[in-house]
Amino acid sequence: MSIAVFPGSFDPITNGHIDILRRALKLFDRIIVGVGFNAGKNYTFTAEERVEMVREATEGLPVEVESYTGLLVDFVKSRDCSVVIRSLRASTDFEHEFQMSMFNREYHPDIEHIYLMASKEVMFISSSMVKEIVERGGDVKKMVPANVALALQRKFPEKPSSPKPL
Amino acid sequence: MSIAVFPGSFDPITNGHIDILRRALKLFDRIIVGVGFNAGKNYTFTAEERVEMVREATEGLPVEVESYTGLLVDFVKSRDCSVVIRSLRASTDFEHEFQMSMFNREYHPDIEHIYLMASKEVMFISSSMVKEIVERGGDVKKMVPANVALALQRKFPEKPSSPKPL
Amino acid sequence: MSIAVFPGSFDPITNGHIDILRRALKLFDRIIVGVGFNAGKNYTFTAEERVEMVREATEGLPVEVESYTGLLVDFVKSRDCSVVIRSLRASTDFEHEFQMSMFNREYHPDIEHIYLMASKEVMFISSSMVKEIVERGGDVKKMVPANVALALQRKFPEKPSSPKPL
Amino acid sequence: MSIAVFPGSFDPITNGHIDILRRALKLFDRIIVGVGFNAGKNYTFTAEERVEMVREATEGLPVEVESYTGLLVDFVKSRDCSVVIRSLRASTDFEHEFQMSMFNREYHPDIEHIYLMASKEVMFISSSMVKEIVERGGDVKKMVPANVALALQRKFPEKPSSPKPL
Amino acid sequence: MSIAVFPGSFDPITNGHIDILRRALKLFDRIIVGVGFNAGKNYTFTAEERVEMVREATEGLPVEVESYTGLLVDFVKSRDCSVVIRSLRASTDFEHEFQMSMFNREYHPDIEHIYLMASKEVMFISSSMVKEIVERGGDVKKMVPANVALALQRKFPEKPSSPKPL
Amino acid sequence: MSIAVFPGSFDPITNGHIDILRRALKLFDRIIVGVGFNAGKNYTFTAEERVEMVREATEGLPVEVESYTGLLVDFVKSRDCSVVIRSLRASTDFEHEFQMSMFNREYHPDIEHIYLMASKEVMFISSSMVKEIVERGGDVKKMVPANVALALQRKFPEKPSSPKPL
Repeated sequence: MSIAVFPGSFDPITNGHIDILRRALKLFDRIIVGVGFNAGKNYTFTAEERVEMVREATEGLPVEVESYTGLLVDFVKSRDCSVVIRSLRASTDFEHEFQMSMFNREYHPDIEHIYLMASKEVMFISSSMVKEIVERGGDVKKMVPANVALALQRKFPEKPSSPKPL
Repeated sequence: MSIAVFPGSFDPITNGHIDILRRALKLFDRIIVGVGFNAGKNYTFTAEERVEMVREATEGLPVEVESYTGLLVDFVKSRDCSVVIRSLRASTDFEHEFQMSMFNREYHPDIEHIYLMASKEVMFISSSMVKEIVERGGDVKKMVPANVALALQRKFPEKPSSPKPL
Repeated sequence: MSIAVFPGSFDPITNGHIDILRRALKLFDRIIVGVGFNAGKNYTFTAEERVEMVREATEGLPVEVESYTGLLVDFVKSRDCSVVIRSLRASTDFEHEFQMSMFNREYHPDIEHIYLMASKEVMFISSSMVKEIVERGGDVKKMVPANVALALQRKFPEKPSSPKPL
Repeated sequence: MSIAVFPGSFDPITNGHIDILRRALKLFDRIIVGVGFNAGKNYTFTAEERVEMVREATEGLPVEVESYTGLLVDFVKSRDCSVVIRSLRASTDFEHEFQMSMFNREYHPDIEHIYLMASKEVMFISSSMVKEIVERGGDVKKMVPANVALALQRKFPEKPSSPKPL
Repeated sequence: MSIAVFPGSFDPITNGHIDILRRALKLFDRIIVGVGFNAGKNYTFTAEERVEMVREATEGLPVEVESYTGLLVDFVKSRDCSVVIRSLRASTDFEHEFQMSMFNREYHPDIEHIYLMASKEVMFISSSMVKEIVERGGDVKKMVPANVALALQRKFPEKPSSPKPL
Repeated sequence: MSIAVFPGSFDPITNGHIDILRRALKLFDRIIVGVGFNAGKNYTFTAEERVEMVREATEGLPVEVESYTGLLVDFVKSRDCSVVIRSLRASTDFEHEFQMSMFNREYHPDIEHIYLMASKEVMFISSSMVKEIVERGGDVKKMVPANVALALQRKFPEKPSSPKPL
């Protein structure tokens, strides 16, 4: 049975992540979504919230969701897995991917990273853009699963911060 | 009468912005400079200060200056306008432009973004670099309008933060 | 009455070009499509064929189609025009655009280039890819106007060049 | 039994290709190397030579080598396969990859492309650079399999084209 | 006697910096490492710590280490020097380099910047990645000098921030 | 006495090359301009013409001009030199530079490449663009030395290739 880890912050999960997940499930029997938690980083949602949102959004799929802290490679090994799935977009973090991949392979040459290219429809969706839009009062229903849209509304309920008209 | 919106943080306005404005005024009768204010973002100057600096620097031009909060597209629509002007530089935020343009067009297909390329003389000027230079005691007179140069001096009067010689 | 030139090789015109044309027509009353002809360059279709294909594909739109040779800026000036429209894609020729824009503006500072970003649906279409696909026996009906699809079929009727099975 | 296609020109195969092949064989039981032949393209080696070189260089591995002409997706389907393996390098053809992937997925949504990143040691090797070096009299033993190094020597035996000293 | 300045944050110095230093010392008799300190910036190590780490790591080399604040060009001039050495990597800060170089040359046309390309072995090392790895409990012994590895361990002794298992 | 090699096709030499040469002469006592000749490549000017144009354009400077064939590194070594100067532009051949530098350093670790960034004024000039402009009847006097402007006029005397008006 083939397994792969799909790591990320998922702060929150978007339709872009879902697209990658569905397509990766044609290549692997089961996917472990690794929701990263790093003490030095600021998240909009807590690790618990992020895990819960992924779980709801992937219900019915052969997907496990777990949070992890520390190095991704250690998490991958602890799950007896050797494949990491990553997504590539036009607006990519390409170099950071290179660094990460080089580092991981240097220390764990048996762990392989495979990259899927984001589909055209979701290529320009990112967690940070979704939050930026919601913060400014925009609608992101087409960009995230329904449960995430609700969670975002609760997190950014109003825009009381408008400056007085000048 | 043709109108376009030129949005940005203008924190502060630079000669790069002025260059784009002057050239855009050959294409449009009037330009509305939209000075963005977003609660989650840190600005060096307040919205009022930024608006005021743009006003002084564009005196005599058929330019209106307003601050806005929320989504750019909502601001554009509220002004009965359908064109957004953006600047492109070699050191560009190209992908962020793509994301923003894709998002806006998906929700408001009638709003068009047009891009002008920064002129060679101002291509390497950015608001953040201007501030970085002033903070370190450098001279930015050639890079910003005179009123902005003064405002920057008042904002970063001294460099009391030098470490003791080691 | 506002006019702009939309230059290119159009070898052949694709739905990507049509998308830009339609959107540019919201900004300008009339567009002159300039079909470039350069002696040193190899084209799949002759200048006459390329002009004819653009004409058919833009019938009913306030568009003029002309071939030109020599410098774009000379062509633009000979039409009493001062705006050039260009398209930007993710897979862009961004630097070549910069060079061209810098050169043109240095010699003709009154000519302005404005850039529109290709729509998501056509972002990955290019004339060269269309021809590559047809040459290999693929279907490009969704990527080019109907008359161009026919012209491509006539140009690349068969694939007699397959190597013998090894 | 899982199968994937690894397509390319392999003109000639390099250690960079071998690296990807070996790593892909940890993910798939068998790999079909598809040696592309396109009538409109100039190759240094014939399709037969390229296939033969790949065969020798991959002896002992669960790899099949075949030439194909026409569209990659048709080749993939004719082999009852649905996965295409591609390599990414720092000096990448990233945008062309995007175009190809978008086109293929639009017409054959069931075919998936997965990308592996070239290893650090072979990241700067490309078929064209290898040939450029050999043409200029350089040594490429560390960059290609032994049989390919020999084939290159036979193909570029001398450098009789040096200009007379000026 | 030829001298050049090698500026940076060195927060902390990595084997990538050491590689550039050693190679630059074939071109210049002496290198002044300028450890930048900017009040508005957050550093992991103090200016004193960063200077001290560079000193230990470069012992025996004709290298001077000094911290500086303010503009780099002022620092370079105060040392009667006119050459600045910078490193380029695949994951580069290329545009920021351009801006900085353009700005410095505009005001100090006699100061030249020369760029060396990071060696393949250290191309994917950056100070920020090193810290990210240590923070997550990873080993960076191959990426930084021994004294820096120790300093990093003292700085990030434990990972008490792990979330409770969900 | 310090010497460096500045290699290129110089087909023809432009003001961009002259700018790099003048600045490099502040770092080195003497520069050897290596005019590359490669049998497999098409040049507009012969090796003799290119060498002659560089000689005239650099008269009075401590510059030697020689053509070379084969590998750059072999040429550099044959001149008892160990430094290669390259130019970087925004519209750069960055990845090709990486490949070349990696290859050269792997085989000749004692040869160092140093990069200078093109000045703002000449950043968008390239030999190929200069020829493209002349071919189309444009004026390149500000972009190349006077002797090169003449040579280009002789090479592209007329534009008899204009298509008949359609």
